[in-house]
Amino acid sequence: MRAIMILLLTAVLPLPVAATPPPPSNGIRLPATYKHWQVLGVSHRDDNQSLRAIVGNTTAMIAARKGQTHPWPDGTILGKLVWKDSRHPFWQPAIVPGKLSHIEFMVKDSQKYPDTGGWGFARWVGMELKPLNNDGGKPCFECHKAAAKTDYVFTRPAPLP
Amino acid sequence: MRAIMILLLTAVLPLPVAATPPPPSNGIRLPATYKHWQVLGVSHRDDNQSLRAIVGNTTAMIAARKGQTHPWPDGTILGKLVWKDSRHPFWQPAIVPGKLSHIEFMVKDSQKYPDTGGWGFARWVGMELKPLNNDGGKPCFECHKAAAKTDYVFTRPAPLP
Repeated sequence: MRAIMILLLTAVLPLPVAATPPPPSNGIRLPATYKHWQVLGVSHRDDNQSLRAIVGNTTAMIAARKGQTHPWPDGTILGKLVWKDSRHPFWQPAIVPGKLSHIEFMVKDSQKYPDTGGWGFARWVGMELKPLNNDGGKPCFECHKAAAKTDYVFTRPAPLP
Repeated sequence: MRAIMILLLTAVLPLPVAATPPPPSNGIRLPATYKHWQVLGVSHRDDNQSLRAIVGNTTAMIAARKGQTHPWPDGTILGKLVWKDSRHPFWQPAIVPGKLSHIEFMVKDSQKYPDTGGWGFARWVGMELKPLNNDGGKPCFECHKAAAKTDYVFTRPAPLP
């Protein structure tokens, strides 16, 4: 048996922040606290040799833990932190993060983004966080159509007890 | 230029908890809030086909962001969430989490664990969280000796802006 317990978590954590936030990407601002978000999953793409951590904001994680992701609720933000592959120097069978490739986010707002499945798409490239502006994320959405069955989201919450 | 800003984060998040916590592993209790910890890195092992998210408690993340991990400070807890590989059904080049393999933790306490590099090692296997009890983690430490140069920790904090 499981119980859902509501925890009030108060954590004093250092958050390295740029003196000024980067410019928006496709009209979306970089979520300030994304480094504090919980882990939703991980992935490794062997076509473009990149490792990913997938994180979610509070709305996303509540929905994921309850299995209420068909569709994901408005207010959901999913983040993908993407690094190029590297081999661990002390443990060769381990592929580990090399250089940061980019960080990217999907923002669910069904009113605001009706033409792209209810999702806004944003990406900032490299450690300098250069914003991508690509026609309101329409090219992102084209690929995400492959995941239409799961509300255009590829990530499936990774199982945890 | 960067500034370190101390953020007081108050988040109301649902934490699925077992009605009773699992038994200890090597005398270590399962950290109750590990799902709320920040991402320190990810990895993919192609020898045993597993994907990992590596997370850290507050002490760990403060040390990691400041680069003060030689050695990691007492109080550090690092967690590894390990899933068996699976191919994404809608995007074949993506390796994604399948079944949960185990979750494991390293607890830094240089007074308590002098025989294993100052680290306690704990592991719970599968969704049922069956505790591993293996001679106080000595077999874990044997492998971790390969990472003696980085305080017996394989994970290198993944770069983020």
